[in-house]
Amino acid sequence: MNKIEFESASEDVQAVYKDICTTRNVPDVNNFWKYLANEPRMLRHVWESLKDIMGPGALDPLTKELIYLAISVSNNCPYCMASHAAAARAKGASEEMINEVYAVTGLANMTNRLANAYQVPVDDQFQPPGTGGEAA
Amino acid sequence: MNKIEFESASEDVQAVYKDICTTRNVPDVNNFWKYLANEPRMLRHVWESLKDIMGPGALDPLTKELIYLAISVSNNCPYCMASHAAAARAKGASEEMINEVYAVTGLANMTNRLANAYQVPVDDQFQPPGTGGEAA
Amino acid sequence: MNKIEFESASEDVQAVYKDICTTRNVPDVNNFWKYLANEPRMLRHVWESLKDIMGPGALDPLTKELIYLAISVSNNCPYCMASHAAAARAKGASEEMINEVYAVTGLANMTNRLANAYQVPVDDQFQPPGTGGEAA
Amino acid sequence: MNKIEFESASEDVQAVYKDICTTRNVPDVNNFWKYLANEPRMLRHVWESLKDIMGPGALDPLTKELIYLAISVSNNCPYCMASHAAAARAKGASEEMINEVYAVTGLANMTNRLANAYQVPVDDQFQPPGTGGEAA
Amino acid sequence: MNKIEFESASEDVQAVYKDICTTRNVPDVNNFWKYLANEPRMLRHVWESLKDIMGPGALDPLTKELIYLAISVSNNCPYCMASHAAAARAKGASEEMINEVYAVTGLANMTNRLANAYQVPVDDQFQPPGTGGEAA
Amino acid sequence: MNKIEFESASEDVQAVYKDICTTRNVPDVNNFWKYLANEPRMLRHVWESLKDIMGPGALDPLTKELIYLAISVSNNCPYCMASHAAAARAKGASEEMINEVYAVTGLANMTNRLANAYQVPVDDQFQPPGTGGEAA
Repeated sequence: MNKIEFESASEDVQAVYKDICTTRNVPDVNNFWKYLANEPRMLRHVWESLKDIMGPGALDPLTKELIYLAISVSNNCPYCMASHAAAARAKGASEEMINEVYAVTGLANMTNRLANAYQVPVDDQFQPPGTGGEAA
Repeated sequence: MNKIEFESASEDVQAVYKDICTTRNVPDVNNFWKYLANEPRMLRHVWESLKDIMGPGALDPLTKELIYLAISVSNNCPYCMASHAAAARAKGASEEMINEVYAVTGLANMTNRLANAYQVPVDDQFQPPGTGGEAA
Repeated sequence: MNKIEFESASEDVQAVYKDICTTRNVPDVNNFWKYLANEPRMLRHVWESLKDIMGPGALDPLTKELIYLAISVSNNCPYCMASHAAAARAKGASEEMINEVYAVTGLANMTNRLANAYQVPVDDQFQPPGTGGEAA
Repeated sequence: MNKIEFESASEDVQAVYKDICTTRNVPDVNNFWKYLANEPRMLRHVWESLKDIMGPGALDPLTKELIYLAISVSNNCPYCMASHAAAARAKGASEEMINEVYAVTGLANMTNRLANAYQVPVDDQFQPPGTGGEAA
Repeated sequence: MNKIEFESASEDVQAVYKDICTTRNVPDVNNFWKYLANEPRMLRHVWESLKDIMGPGALDPLTKELIYLAISVSNNCPYCMASHAAAARAKGASEEMINEVYAVTGLANMTNRLANAYQVPVDDQFQPPGTGGEAA
Repeated sequence: MNKIEFESASEDVQAVYKDICTTRNVPDVNNFWKYLANEPRMLRHVWESLKDIMGPGALDPLTKELIYLAISVSNNCPYCMASHAAAARAKGASEEMINEVYAVTGLANMTNRLANAYQVPVDDQFQPPGTGGEAA
């Protein structure tokens, strides 16, 4: 698929590009959006979802970038690792913080497999609220 | 494999159990450790790694629990999801925060695949520090 | 491992190569088979499985190529993404169809994690036929 | 997290529930939405994305359900497997078609790993349109 | 899907069941085959592949069962974990060996992510034979 | 992140590097450690875990390298595939053995999905020791 630049984009795509540039205060959208524009409906849905969720909320934006980075490492998406590490740094992440994200990602991948290997039953005190598990 | 309780554990295993209980100020270790004790070397290594990394550091302990939770959801480890959601709540996570972690995890899994599908090339401005990519 | 060309292949491997070329009406096998020929038993089993399943059946060949492409994107196999996208195009897939495959793949990866995150119980009406779930 | 029924939902959530019921011509939304409603923003984004992409488009809705099912199997999401198999059956999928989806999913997971194991280079004829690879 | 018992199976399926029972010296096939028989072509291909590869070869059968177990843990397939752990035990695996398999599986999942996180370049001495990397 | 060479490393990192070189009888550590040294705590924990588990134990070191290789292929970690294939060859693995590892990895990834697709219930005889499943 080709990269779709602003000039050659449809009006719908241009509108999303403009909103990204305005929201993020950047002069141009990054490559992810230029490729995703091959599917204009997804371009719009993905952007609207990210704009809504990744901004301020119950969690601060930096924390969410770090979670995004951790998932991207765990799933082995080189583009996403690069873009979300850059976004995390832009939001104030130090190299020490990035390194800790990688450490936690590695450890979680290890213990996820160990817990599954032993088919560890969930302790009563870890049952989520709203189920019968946490009862007296 | 059987669950190994304190009373029937070897001295090495008991020493790890005691350190977990002391460090976390809990009366007993949770099931994960009781199963992992079938491999006493891993019990010790995993515990020492988690004790070192998941405590205070460049990131606060709650942020690291949330990252751990996100990876556990992404990898589909029900035990780890339950235990790290509980740990996050114990460290102050609200339900709104947990819900946002799930949202970010879902979005990252979507865009990870979209970026890989289009084989999006990394933008120059996202090249990590220390490589040639960010040059003038 | 080296790529094994027809001339330097064993008779067993050559027989598989010839069957691939005849079945697909191509002058030479693609790289996947030339590397897999390092394990001649797997070469034969994989080819016989693909020949049997990917041809006409309950589903048409194009639909199966698109499913193959979707899995390859989801698993991040660049070679498989390239070869099955090419095969889908050769069987009539438009760029719009390829883009929709990517969209569905992204969405499924998102909702798979969200359903697991919330540990959503299966609705009675979704219980598979043959279980007690779909009862009167 | 609790399941959120229509009666106890916020107005925003009720609006999404109503749109799902109208669009799908069903009396009530299935459990996935009732749990996702714990994060009302994601409820709306996921629904709007699915409504847009999973309806008629370049691919017919049944084909897209089968792709969704294949990804859900590959990612091991039991809820999604059950709901999308049910949706595929409702849109006309025979048991033979479902079985072929499983077969293709299994084969793709096998050959994805074999292609990665041998680090198979992409053949020139498989280079995507728009790159230099397909040149004369 | 229903489980297909020998009595109600087609002749083709019965022939595979008989070969499994003879090869493994068991009175009946295990559940995996009874479900896979819903897709008789895959039943035959999967069985022929496993019969060929999992028997004596360059690696002994026990080693191959342990690898199969490790992958099944890593991919979180509870059925496969149970059946291949049982097969490994039947071929002589001790509990200590099973525990080490789990340990290696956990460690590999951790270091796989760490190596990807840092995008570690492959050392010259690790370049596979047949490439330019191992040169003088 | 930058690669950290011995000369510019902290004393803690140098101590780990020295232990790796002594234990493995090599003149320098490979790139994995030089990048992981950006997080000195993980450098030490990962090394101590690998030193302990990957040496002689219930399983011989070659078997463990092959399992490590299989997981690395399954997870698609190119660095880990290269380094553990090299380590396996150094410990005596033939090309036939490496090819069989790839074959088993491919087959397990296929049958893992098929078993999950059919939600195959675990046979009584495969229930792990210590549960009620293996009863008379």
